[in-house]
Amino acid sequence: MSYWPVQPGSHRRPPMKRLRRNCGVALSALLLSLLAFKAFAVAEGAAESRAHAALLRDRAMMGSNAMRIVTDLTTQVGPRLAGSEAEARARAWALAILNKKGFANVRNEPFEMDAWQRHDEGGQILAPYPQPLAVSALGGSVSTGKDGLSADVTLFETLDDLKDAPKGSLEGRIAYVGHAMQRTQDGSSYGYFNDARTAGPSIAASKGALGYLIRSVGTDSHRFPHTGSLRYSEDMPRIPALALSNPDADQIERIAAGGQSLSVKVWVDSSVVPAAQSGNVIAEIPGRETPDEIVVIGAHLDSWDLGTGAIDDGAGVGITMAALELIKEAGLAPRRTIRLVLWGAEEVGLLGALAYRDKHEAAVANHVIGSESDFGGGRIWKITADSQSKAGDTLFSDMARLLAPIGVAAGSDDEPGGGPDLYPLIAAGMPTLRLHQDGSDYFDLHHTADDTVDKLDSAALDQNVAAFAVFAWLAADSDVSFRAEKTPE
Amino acid sequence: MSYWPVQPGSHRRPPMKRLRRNCGVALSALLLSLLAFKAFAVAEGAAESRAHAALLRDRAMMGSNAMRIVTDLTTQVGPRLAGSEAEARARAWALAILNKKGFANVRNEPFEMDAWQRHDEGGQILAPYPQPLAVSALGGSVSTGKDGLSADVTLFETLDDLKDAPKGSLEGRIAYVGHAMQRTQDGSSYGYFNDARTAGPSIAASKGALGYLIRSVGTDSHRFPHTGSLRYSEDMPRIPALALSNPDADQIERIAAGGQSLSVKVWVDSSVVPAAQSGNVIAEIPGRETPDEIVVIGAHLDSWDLGTGAIDDGAGVGITMAALELIKEAGLAPRRTIRLVLWGAEEVGLLGALAYRDKHEAAVANHVIGSESDFGGGRIWKITADSQSKAGDTLFSDMARLLAPIGVAAGSDDEPGGGPDLYPLIAAGMPTLRLHQDGSDYFDLHHTADDTVDKLDSAALDQNVAAFAVFAWLAADSDVSFRAEKTPE
Repeated sequence: MSYWPVQPGSHRRPPMKRLRRNCGVALSALLLSLLAFKAFAVAEGAAESRAHAALLRDRAMMGSNAMRIVTDLTTQVGPRLAGSEAEARARAWALAILNKKGFANVRNEPFEMDAWQRHDEGGQILAPYPQPLAVSALGGSVSTGKDGLSADVTLFETLDDLKDAPKGSLEGRIAYVGHAMQRTQDGSSYGYFNDARTAGPSIAASKGALGYLIRSVGTDSHRFPHTGSLRYSEDMPRIPALALSNPDADQIERIAAGGQSLSVKVWVDSSVVPAAQSGNVIAEIPGRETPDEIVVIGAHLDSWDLGTGAIDDGAGVGITMAALELIKEAGLAPRRTIRLVLWGAEEVGLLGALAYRDKHEAAVANHVIGSESDFGGGRIWKITADSQSKAGDTLFSDMARLLAPIGVAAGSDDEPGGGPDLYPLIAAGMPTLRLHQDGSDYFDLHHTADDTVDKLDSAALDQNVAAFAVFAWLAADSDVSFRAEKTPE
Repeated sequence: MSYWPVQPGSHRRPPMKRLRRNCGVALSALLLSLLAFKAFAVAEGAAESRAHAALLRDRAMMGSNAMRIVTDLTTQVGPRLAGSEAEARARAWALAILNKKGFANVRNEPFEMDAWQRHDEGGQILAPYPQPLAVSALGGSVSTGKDGLSADVTLFETLDDLKDAPKGSLEGRIAYVGHAMQRTQDGSSYGYFNDARTAGPSIAASKGALGYLIRSVGTDSHRFPHTGSLRYSEDMPRIPALALSNPDADQIERIAAGGQSLSVKVWVDSSVVPAAQSGNVIAEIPGRETPDEIVVIGAHLDSWDLGTGAIDDGAGVGITMAALELIKEAGLAPRRTIRLVLWGAEEVGLLGALAYRDKHEAAVANHVIGSESDFGGGRIWKITADSQSKAGDTLFSDMARLLAPIGVAAGSDDEPGGGPDLYPLIAAGMPTLRLHQDGSDYFDLHHTADDTVDKLDSAALDQNVAAFAVFAWLAADSDVSFRAEKTPE
């Protein structure tokens, strides 16, 4: 099902597009036709709303505050692990800046969580060729104890091969799962390979393994291990789990291919702080007519501890905060409320998103539509949505037309999405819009020490700001519902 | 002065080139002219020698053993710091492989040295924005003591600014020198910026500083600090000295630009093992007529400890060992001896090169010419030499013509060079040939943990092998001297 079909002859394509595609007429004639169509087809208010959206887009493209914001966050706070004192500093930073900018209803909505902390980690090959390894504990990994864990390694090419290993076959050993994630524009391989990270440790434990290693879920070839959350099964022993950088994974696979027994030592020192504080930071531009109706944009404020969280997700914080700022500074007041949510503790299991859903459960039906920026700083190349109404489809067409000049194509994929922190709201029925970023390089840096602000491109961030401003403004300044119409067509 | 002038009309350009450049004749006529010229101009033996060189070149380009060799060295030994047990394993590896390949006079020439060792290191910003720093001790740095060194930082944009600081002005402080090395094809900026690393610590100490930090001497923007030797002055207190990765250097410069006082903590745990063992590993193809005359090729076997020393200098080991192997496997016996030297302890002050010079002092005059491969795995784009004789110039022209088809241009720079380990021999009068590699990316990886074998390109290594084989073969199979003629022209 497609809301902005791009196939030739589709009955759903807006008439404007067909006109523009098929006519070879001179520019002046085309402009006249456009104006005539516009006057005929749209209400005066919607036309004004679109004109404002175009203005916001153009202002963003001239240069937004996004790069300044993400630079400040990653410099003045740096790494901000979920539930840590650093994440608290990030909230304080966000509250100060949002208040300073004069947004409404600026607040922290706190919640409690068990906060994992990394104290020390490392690894080395003991035999046959002693040398250090670039490794990093997966988020949530238990400690090895002071003496570390020294054991022979059994290598598996894939997670399925590990699953096929006989019970007890890994007693006293460390299991390693290799795989090679390839880069994709849309990041679609991540879910597939990520199972080795999340589910792998307990699968290895079920075969008797003492420890677990993976090739990093990442597309670079640098000596940066990629961390990220694991998920222990309740019924399995919790074993230490670490990721090797891709060059180190190559190294141990090369050594193992030589046929000799491979022995390694790894160590992890970690702990969990129970009932630690996290929170979601919120700011709004209140709706002028229906303030209870909410258009949600946002990003997550926490990051992994290895880098400074620039692409994940400082970029999203910068993009969405700059978009909200742009609307406010233009002096525009939308019909509905635009709410910016900077979620806490996303990386460790969408804890902020779940807390938000719980706190706002009664108001979920008033959440008109949402979109999160959480895929780095690459340019938006596609827009899709899961609108369930004809009026919603029309409004999306308006958005798509406004974004086409800045390189955004209307896509035909209508899977709900729009960012991980929206999943609980999606499950509760909220429609979403997806502003698809080019993530070809995203998994080069994702969850590594190298996720720093020098990797971001200011002009690409501005293009993202333009798209978020157009979306948030048009959605909030209309009265259309994106939910399914109650009376069938 | 130019030995292969490329300027139009130069009197030194070989007639062949002029012919080929100026004639618009058909290919068959050109070939006839070439053959006629060849028959006229060169002796039968030299023609055969050149034909063999062309064969060696073409075989190398079809695929050499260089990638295999550097892969084995960096996998089976890994990092091999000068004077360490790992460097000893590298020598054992090299002796075994050279013996297995059947070279003559395979041996280790041992020497003693004080071996610096890195045990632990790290850093963090204490104020105003607490966060970890990616830092690494410079080679030779003293320890900070167990509690580390915590102090405010004074930032200098350049080493000259540090030199201008008043005496005593850095009492109780850490000095930081920032600078931004730009990438060049020939690596020519390295010497300029490297002074901040080598001389900086004692200059800072002379102003009263307790510690010294630099922006890494490197061209990447990854969180890899670049290590490398410092050089303490005898008359100054030895202070701990570390390099920040480029993104971390950006970070502290950004923070300092905000006007607040910057406080950091750094720690280094290092030690020196006195009278540790190092050595130069040597193998030869003995000369069939004048075995006492030596053509030297080689690379250094030691590496820094952070990476596995693939570009620095596993690549050179692979290239020169594969070139020697190629000549041997072709069944060729040159007039003179070709000697492969794999120097030890290059990184910490050319200790192997100095030991070699001392041991072979009486035979330096018999060292006909030399060239070392120590600038990574990039393709050779230029060849220059400091020959001091007409016969030498002619032989270089032959080499250049044989290398032109694989993309090597004859250059006009005749500064002596050909690799750092040759400096002591150059000082003693040995001529050198420089096979200039493209080093545009070299200082992205140089002296970092990211110097691993995945960064090398097999085809580029093969092109290097071709050039070394052509050079070594032609120089060793001739009787010309590259030294100044004794009777003036």
